[in-house]
Order: sequence, then C-alpha cells, then structure tokens
Amino acid sequence: MKKIVIHQANQMITMRGASEQPKIGEAMSDLGIIENGSLAMEGGKIVAIGTKEEVERFIVQNWGNEDVEEVNALGKIVLPGFIDPHTHLVFAGSREYELEMRLNGASYLEILQAGGGILASTRMTRAASEAALVEDTWSRLNRFLLQGVTTVEAKSGYGLTLEDELKQLRAAKQLAQKHPLDVVSTFMGAHAVPTEYKEDPEAYIKLVIEEMMPKVAAENLAEFCDVFCEAGVFSVEQSERILEAGKKHGLIPKVHADEIKPLGGAELAAKVGAVSADHLLQASDEGIQAMAEAGVVAVLLPGTAFYLMAPYARARDMIAAGVPVALSTDRNPGSSPTESLQLIMNLACLNMKMTPAEVLTATTINAAHAIGRAKEVGSLEVGKAADVIIMDAPNYAMLQYNFGTNFVESVLKNGEFVVKDGQLCFNT
Amino acid sequence: MKKIVIHQANQMITMRGASEQPKIGEAMSDLGIIENGSLAMEGGKIVAIGTKEEVERFIVQNWGNEDVEEVNALGKIVLPGFIDPHTHLVFAGSREYELEMRLNGASYLEILQAGGGILASTRMTRAASEAALVEDTWSRLNRFLLQGVTTVEAKSGYGLTLEDELKQLRAAKQLAQKHPLDVVSTFMGAHAVPTEYKEDPEAYIKLVIEEMMPKVAAENLAEFCDVFCEAGVFSVEQSERILEAGKKHGLIPKVHADEIKPLGGAELAAKVGAVSADHLLQASDEGIQAMAEAGVVAVLLPGTAFYLMAPYARARDMIAAGVPVALSTDRNPGSSPTESLQLIMNLACLNMKMTPAEVLTATTINAAHAIGRAKEVGSLEVGKAADVIIMDAPNYAMLQYNFGTNFVESVLKNGEFVVKDGQLCFNT
Ligand SMILES: [Zn+2]
Ligand SMILES: [Zn+2]
Repeated sequence: MKKIVIHQANQMITMRGASEQPKIGEAMSDLGIIENGSLAMEGGKIVAIGTKEEVERFIVQNWGNEDVEEVNALGKIVLPGFIDPHTHLVFAGSREYELEMRLNGASYLEILQAGGGILASTRMTRAASEAALVEDTWSRLNRFLLQGVTTVEAKSGYGLTLEDELKQLRAAKQLAQKHPLDVVSTFMGAHAVPTEYKEDPEAYIKLVIEEMMPKVAAENLAEFCDVFCEAGVFSVEQSERILEAGKKHGLIPKVHADEIKPLGGAELAAKVGAVSADHLLQASDEGIQAMAEAGVVAVLLPGTAFYLMAPYARARDMIAAGVPVALSTDRNPGSSPTESLQLIMNLACLNMKMTPAEVLTATTINAAHAIGRAKEVGSLEVGKAADVIIMDAPNYAMLQYNFGTNFVESVLKNGEFVVKDGQLCFNT
Repeated sequence: MKKIVIHQANQMITMRGASEQPKIGEAMSDLGIIENGSLAMEGGKIVAIGTKEEVERFIVQNWGNEDVEEVNALGKIVLPGFIDPHTHLVFAGSREYELEMRLNGASYLEILQAGGGILASTRMTRAASEAALVEDTWSRLNRFLLQGVTTVEAKSGYGLTLEDELKQLRAAKQLAQKHPLDVVSTFMGAHAVPTEYKEDPEAYIKLVIEEMMPKVAAENLAEFCDVFCEAGVFSVEQSERILEAGKKHGLIPKVHADEIKPLGGAELAAKVGAVSADHLLQASDEGIQAMAEAGVVAVLLPGTAFYLMAPYARARDMIAAGVPVALSTDRNPGSSPTESLQLIMNLACLNMKMTPAEVLTATTINAAHAIGRAKEVGSLEVGKAADVIIMDAPNYAMLQYNFGTNFVESVLKNGEFVVKDGQLCFNT
C-alpha cells in the first residue's frame, strides 16, 4: 500500500479533538493549526501528523528506507477534505430558464404553471433510468471533488413513487461504489406531496411509511430519513410521525426545518433526536435553544438564500446559543444549483457574518457530525481516513478574502490522489 | 500564421452590431446568437463566422487544403473574451486579515488605525520595486485569464508620489507587453490624498496635474485619467479640474462616481465627456439621465457591494433609462479582492436583477466601449481580434444557473490558445 507524506504546509489545519462532539461556540474558531506541519499516510489512513520534525521522526522509526511519495506543501495550506452534509444530488434535467422568469417577476406558482418547479424535476427524474441518473450525477460529483469535497450526503425525493424513490437511492448507491467521493444516502420520500396525492396527503404519508420505508431498509439504501416540515407541505405532527416511523427502520432523523414559515421544525428536530436540522431561516429563539440542548447540528444553506434572493439564517445567534453549525451547498436543481462549497463559505462570511475560521469548522468536522461520520472523517488525526486537500493559499483567511476562487490544488481520497494540479486524476 | 476553426458551437454568442455604439435597453438582451455556429481565425483575427455551412464554404474557397487546426465545440458555447474595464490591478501585499476585523464590527477608521486600509496598500506598493509589482500582478493576470478575461483595464493610485505612480504604470506597461492578456492603463493619481498632504490637498492636486500628468503623457503610460470623486476625497469641482487637465494631455476621463455619497459624480461624468462613470451606488435620477444623454457607460461593480456588505447599484433603473451598462470586478486589495468575473455576473443577476443575457453584454461589448476598445474586441465579428472563449455549458443561461462555477474550458488570445482544458498553456 502506497505511503505518502505531505511536507511543511504553512498551515496544517487539523480540526483535532472534536470527533466525539461537534465544535460549538468559541471552539468553532479553534482550527488546531500546526504551522510548518507535515502529514503521513498509509493504507488510506493518516498514520502521523505534526511538525515537520515529528513526522520525520515517525518516518525514520516506522518506514525506514521504504518507498515514500513526498509532496511539498511549502507556502500552502492543508486541510481535511470538505464534507457536504445536505444535497439533493441525484436527479435528471436542469432548470436554467427559471432564473430569467424569476428575475422578470414570475412567482413560484407561475413557474409551476409553466411546467417548472419541483414537479418538473420530479417528472424528469421519473422518466430517467437508473443508469441515466448515475451518468447525470457523475459530473456533479466531479465538480464537488474539484472543490475539495470528499464526502457528500444525497437525499432522494424527486421520485415520490415507491419505484422512483428506490431508483434514486440505488443510483446513489452505485455512485457511492463507483465514484471516489463518498456518498451517504438519506431517504426523503417526504420531500413533497406528489400531484396525484394532492387531495389525500395522508394516503401519501401511508405510502412513505408502510411501503417505501420497509423497502429502503430492506435494501439498506439509506442511513437517514428526512422530511420537508413546512406550511403546505408536511405539518409538524405529520413530520414527527414520518421520522418516528423511520427510526423503527433504523433511519436516523433529519429535518428540513423552518425554511419559509416559523413552524417549529427546530423544536421537532430536538424532540425526535434528529442528527441535524437544516435551513432554519425562520427558526425561533426557543427552537435554537432546544437544538443547543439536544446537540442537534444546524446545517445552514446560504446558497439557497442567495439563489432565491431571500434572507439568510441567523448563524451568529445559533453560534452564540451553543448550536453546532455546519454549512452545505443544498445542491439541487431548483433553489441551489451549485457544487461550489467554497463560494458557500464566502456567502456565509459576508451574508451571515461567520468568520473565516468558523466556516472551515462548519464544512469539515461539524459537517461530519451532521451525517454521523465524525469518527471517520472531518479532521486530520491519526487513524482517520486520509481525505486531504492541498490548497494554493498561504493561510486560511485568504480563502474568504480572494472570494470566488477555487483554491484546490490537490485532493487525496483515502490516501490516493484524485485531483492533481486542479485536474481530476482518478481511474474508475 | 496558424489557421484555427471552431466548429458547431451549440450557441455562438457574437454580440455583433455594436462596435460603434454600446448596447442599451432591449439591445442588451440581443446576443446575436448563431446556433450550430462556427468561427475561423487566421493571423490573430476572425476571418469568418456563421453557421457550420457558411464557415465550411469560406474554408473551401479560401484555405483549400492548407493546414487547419479544428476544434469541436459541439454541446458547448463560444463567446468573445471577457473584458474587465475597471481594476486596481497593480499593487503589493494583501489584506486578508481585515475581513475578520470587519466581521467583528471594526469600522473603516479602526482598520486604518490598526495599519490597514488603503494606506496599507500604498505603504506596501511604495516599498515594492517595479519588478516585484510585475511578479505579484502576474498571478492575478493568470487567474483573470482562467476566468476567460482577455483584456483588463488597470489603474494606478497606490503610489501617490510621482515616482511611485510612474512605477505602477510602468509595471502595467511591462505586463501589457509580456503577458498574453491585454492590459489597458489608466492614470489615477487622484485615488486618495496621501497622508503627507492631508493638511493641503490642493498641493497634492497641483502635484497630480503639474508633475505627474506631464510625465505620464510623455512616457505614454496611460490612455485614461480617473479620479475618486467622493465626499472627503476629491470634490466635484476638484475632480473636474483634474479630469480637464488630463484631457489636455490626451487622457480620456473616467470617474469613480457616487459610490458612498450622492455627490453628483454621474452628472460630472456626462459634463466632462467621460467614457465611463463607475460604482454609481448613490447616483441620482438626474445623474442617470445625464449619463444616458451623453452616452457615458455605467461600469457597475457588484463584487465591491458584496465584499463590503453594502447595497448594490440600481442596474435596472439605468438600463431602463438607456444607460449602457458594463460590469467589472473592481479587482483591488481592499474592497473587491477577486478575479472571478463569472461570479460578478452571478452577483449582478441575483443582487441587481440583471438577466443572464444582459450580464454577458455587460462583460463583452459594453465593457469594450468603457475602455475605448470596441472596434478591436468585445464581439465575434470578421476583422476583430480572435479573443475567444469556449465554455463547457450547453447554453448561456447555465452560467447564471450553476452559479459559482468556472465554465471556461479554453481561451484563445489573438488566435492562439492560452488556456486549454482549464489550464494555462502559454509560453512567455
Ligand atoms: Zn434540501
Ligand atoms: Zn475602483
């Protein structure tokens, strides 16, 4: 198995010490930086990390004269592979013409009536084969990887029939197996009530709980269960029933909470023991407090606010209240069609007043907690996966200063180069 | 001389028909698109453009069996190289730590007192040699080129002494000669009143007019003269004197107008016959009307609003009034440290409600008018420079939809590849 050492990064950003509990409050600003830091990898894992001298000592003692690939990171920063904990990754078709309609003042309803909106994505996803979904999603995963993202969560929810939900999740499973990026699946049959159940949403909830969930669990197609808890979609009571049913099948709850109306989704997330509550633009003070007490990760999605020209979530209030905050693209075809997690960080700084340090915590170790992967990834520590980014920046503040720039030079996934000199370099 | 033909672009975006006058109003939405379009280049110029069939006919008739490099653009879009008409490109040092200070609530004055702000850039630029300025700026030009920018304007104004202003402009001249990107220079000694003239700004204006301008003109170091017309910097009356003096030396006026206070910079630009007025966040209705009547290009800088967390300019009102609108990064070390002109377009759409078509007009032919280059570049027409971008997108709406993405696959400057597969490929 290949041995690689990265030498002498200006800043080795480790994020160490938070694999058990996510970072909250002031700890979000502590990046565990090692200056002039080095990192050794073997067998896909990190085997040593520290100052140049410490890692050289490790190599002499353990590797002797064996073949080692040496990578010089002088003048650069090294950090854990980014984790995107909230995407609707697998879908067919694109909806680029809706933006001009929106700029010309079209309402959500008018776009729906013109054949657009979420129903358009559902229509196109239902019409696509599993193979076509895999192919369409492949290029999105490549763009994520070029941004330094090495683990991504992926929700179903554009199928909205038993077979089409399974098809989306099976496509995600294929991608998890074939693409170097890790794909972590969430079942979200409760993303919308499909048109054919408009008059009887309870019948659709029955379908989700009694037919979809058992199949998803039986085929081992998802780890999490998510629901769009929103006025006019699924009520707090319905959402709770869906998430509790999911728990019986071993699916860990997540909630699309308080995005448009302050419905109490944050409180629900705390109540059902959700691993995360996401969006939270309208979360109440009580909801934020409940999340802090229950340790629910807040996954904030500033790209959606940006693309919908809407207000941003109250990140500062959440951090002050002790809620662990993570960030995500919300990658989807309607409200956040981007893979640029680095721009998401720029947006979080400039529109939500998160600091350059906090946004890195929010896209690494805290994001790992939001998808139950904090013991495996999200920080550079001995024993963890060697998911590593090398960025052509002298310090981490530069990432938010020279905004709109992709600083990724190289990416390693499980100790192997998958991006080099800003180009993909993996074989499949 | 090498012959190249680009074949069968999904959309060949020509921007034709506006080399004499910039596009205004509805014309800003007419991109002159040729579907299934082809383009032939020779001797650094465009020699044929049209449908696949038309260009094939040209080749048979004119090139016969000569050696031709063929580039397939099927499924892609082809457009004129982008033009960035407003940058403060040449400076030393970076100021990445000011963002965290601002996020923590530090005022502009507090940052100045901590040794930051424009005076920090002036201090570092004065301390740098001409060679160091060339080297520092080189990497910025590379990032511009990777974004598809083939012509960039560059202002002085971080020297603020005779020798240091000349040094900045000489560095820009060296870059214009050595780097494939075209650099168009603007003298902006009137960027700020330096500390040493704080008690006697008139003496500094005298230095600008009587000592700097004659030297700049004698060495042929700039085509334009710009002034920061703003409360507490240079008044309308002072700005007018400076710009009129510049005209006597053949320097065409530009104005940093109405950025912070509605001082009447837009009206001044119309009065002195400026080629552009820039920023314009606070421009009055009368100022906008005056610009429309005088044909002054409005150069809008949404990156500055984004990075300073400030309001955006009234692009829609300007377009409605018949003002030709251009867009720019405002690339500078303090208020807009980015080379990502594609993100600037995203910001213009989502924060200023410009459409996906308008932002392309604003970064090509209208931007060319803002720097007096519309006869040479800014559109794909026979006789113009072969400055061409190939983008990996099926249509131009995609550029604003999949936001935060660099779609540039290849860039040709004067008919030669300078970017291929997203990587720089020129020799110097
Ligand atoms: Zn979502
Ligand atoms: Zn400026």
